[in-house]
Amino acid sequence: MRNFDINEDPHRRFNPLINEWVLVSPHRAKRPWQGQNEKIHTDGLPEYDPTCYLCPGNVRANGENNPKYESSFVFENDFAAVKQEAIAFEEETKPTFFKAKPERGIARVVCFSPRHDLTLPEMDLAGIENIIRTWQKEYTDLGNVDYINHVQIFENKGSVMGCSNPHPHGQIWAQSSLPTQVEKTQNSLKAYFEKNNSNLLLDYLKAELEAKERIVIENDHFVALVPFWAIWPFETMIISKRHITKITEFTNEEVSAYALILKALTIKYDNLFETSFPYSSGIHQAPTDGEAHPEWQFHMHFYPPLLRSASVKKFMVGYEMMGEAQRDITPEKSAAVLKALPEVHYKNK
Amino acid sequence: MRNFDINEDPHRRFNPLINEWVLVSPHRAKRPWQGQNEKIHTDGLPEYDPTCYLCPGNVRANGENNPKYESSFVFENDFAAVKQEAIAFEEETKPTFFKAKPERGIARVVCFSPRHDLTLPEMDLAGIENIIRTWQKEYTDLGNVDYINHVQIFENKGSVMGCSNPHPHGQIWAQSSLPTQVEKTQNSLKAYFEKNNSNLLLDYLKAELEAKERIVIENDHFVALVPFWAIWPFETMIISKRHITKITEFTNEEVSAYALILKALTIKYDNLFETSFPYSSGIHQAPTDGEAHPEWQFHMHFYPPLLRSASVKKFMVGYEMMGEAQRDITPEKSAAVLKALPEVHYKNK
Ligand SMILES: O=P(O)(O)O[C@H]1O[C@H](CO)[C@@H](O)[C@H](O)[C@H]1O
Ligand SMILES: O=P(O)(O)O[C@H]1O[C@H](CO)[C@@H](O)[C@H](O)[C@H]1O
Repeated sequence: MRNFDINEDPHRRFNPLINEWVLVSPHRAKRPWQGQNEKIHTDGLPEYDPTCYLCPGNVRANGENNPKYESSFVFENDFAAVKQEAIAFEEETKPTFFKAKPERGIARVVCFSPRHDLTLPEMDLAGIENIIRTWQKEYTDLGNVDYINHVQIFENKGSVMGCSNPHPHGQIWAQSSLPTQVEKTQNSLKAYFEKNNSNLLLDYLKAELEAKERIVIENDHFVALVPFWAIWPFETMIISKRHITKITEFTNEEVSAYALILKALTIKYDNLFETSFPYSSGIHQAPTDGEAHPEWQFHMHFYPPLLRSASVKKFMVGYEMMGEAQRDITPEKSAAVLKALPEVHYKNK
Repeated sequence: MRNFDINEDPHRRFNPLINEWVLVSPHRAKRPWQGQNEKIHTDGLPEYDPTCYLCPGNVRANGENNPKYESSFVFENDFAAVKQEAIAFEEETKPTFFKAKPERGIARVVCFSPRHDLTLPEMDLAGIENIIRTWQKEYTDLGNVDYINHVQIFENKGSVMGCSNPHPHGQIWAQSSLPTQVEKTQNSLKAYFEKNNSNLLLDYLKAELEAKERIVIENDHFVALVPFWAIWPFETMIISKRHITKITEFTNEEVSAYALILKALTIKYDNLFETSFPYSSGIHQAPTDGEAHPEWQFHMHFYPPLLRSASVKKFMVGYEMMGEAQRDITPEKSAAVLKALPEVHYKNK
């Protein structure tokens, strides 16, 4: 019987953050693709688009005018998934299959730049630092609202990720409950902390820095790596090296180092298929429930859908929905590919 | 303060099958869509396509010829995500963040019909019954393989669901481990069974038949409903009325009734936007680990991505990936829409 070779043989890997497995099929990376191709077109965008509801000075859906903002700009989402209104509610006391609870929250849009045609990898470092400071301010302001216990900062980039406007922007959904994925993560972090009196993600980072196989970028304060248990072909995670539970704890140096790694990572992404690389990204950090959360460690997920080219994505469908996440290329191979890519944007070559 | 109105106010609902919540935003159904539109084109397909590797008599990727099959046809997947080979492996005894295990399995493709241009809603009942009998045979044969503990039957339909060939077909991935979603479901079913000495899904079905709000189709042996905790806009679940843990327990009458409800449900789906309606579907049932599984109840999930029209889908992206699943239209509204649709296919009107 052959011995297990993680680079060649089908296997499952365990994700200790959410206690779930992923099926890895390294041998399957070469199957031909005859399915749907994605259209990705962002080249040739104007610096200012008079029809864009996010550009400075333009009119939004609710009839309001955007200010002539010069760095970033935050406004309440005109079609928020949550509302601020308090709702009276009596919880069912008898067991029921129809368990529902009102959810209160605030949803905001963060425009990253007045320029319609720039995304993170093409912005300058000052501009990216400014986004980070905006996230800090929003985390503080929203977190201070009495009924807000969690602030989810995220970005959907590219039409293939459901983004309806190429103007660089992210979103923040702040709400009264811990969302499912965050709760799962917190449970794992807490259990580990209680058992080992130590931080799961910091211990994991240490193991990754020793293994050296999945590191994409490292600077003085942050590491970008492909998690051992990544599900998306080029999924990455940025982790702060110091024990930091939330974005407001960053020093000035850390803000700069975070901007640097954000820019370098997204440049590599754009360079991978020489395209404006689509992804959903999001920050996971301590909830704003007023408690100390030593188990938390600041980290940011990048979930990009592309697999083989600018137009062929990985579909998380039938087996993945009914069974479990599945990937073809190994995380080690993805990390090696990303690591080898230049940190200069292909448009500036 | 207003009282909670589940039809109007943002809220979370609890899914007892996998212990996760979904965020429901009823008020958000009307936001305008300026994002990506899907292309769905299956009209005008020929009955036989000489370039299709699934059509009878044609050559597959591995060089083999398909037989001139007349009903359904099963073959080993040429690009299987799992392999049959046994691999020697020693489990790590010390704790590690790099937890991986080889996975053994068999992947098959099930052609539903020799006709290139038909999908379930347009097939005749005899043809659909034949698919069900094929699933029964595969569940038995694969389940009998000593190292196979779970048989996942599923279908990806439509290019938007990663399906690369419109020829009607599904897949079966059989493997040594319980996939993540199935394990979560089994844990919930087991916990409920142990606590209540009763079957979670049968009790749930009873509650749904009393509530009457989310039932789409009912016949003597099966019910198709929109689960109270559905995440996809037009998600449904087919549940058998009798306590049935696996597909091989069906009586002849049940096979016919299952074919009937499969046809009626997929006709409604096609009629919704007058298009060949894309979805991923899959059967959840008892694992094939040789144990009795009284906690299980046969059910089938349908996860369709479309939201407002044949070309606008729901994107499960940033917030959904980092936070939790989110839906706009309520399950009750979706059920009412599906229920009202005719059971005659729009092409035959
Ligand atoms: O097996 P296929 O049809 O080539 O591939 C499709 O279904 C698989 C199982 O859900 C997925 O892993 C693939 O991403 C998808 O494209
Ligand atoms: O808020 P947007 O950009 O209109 O919408 C996009 O992001 C949301 C949050 O991830 C998703 O719920 C939507 O499905 C997606 O299209």
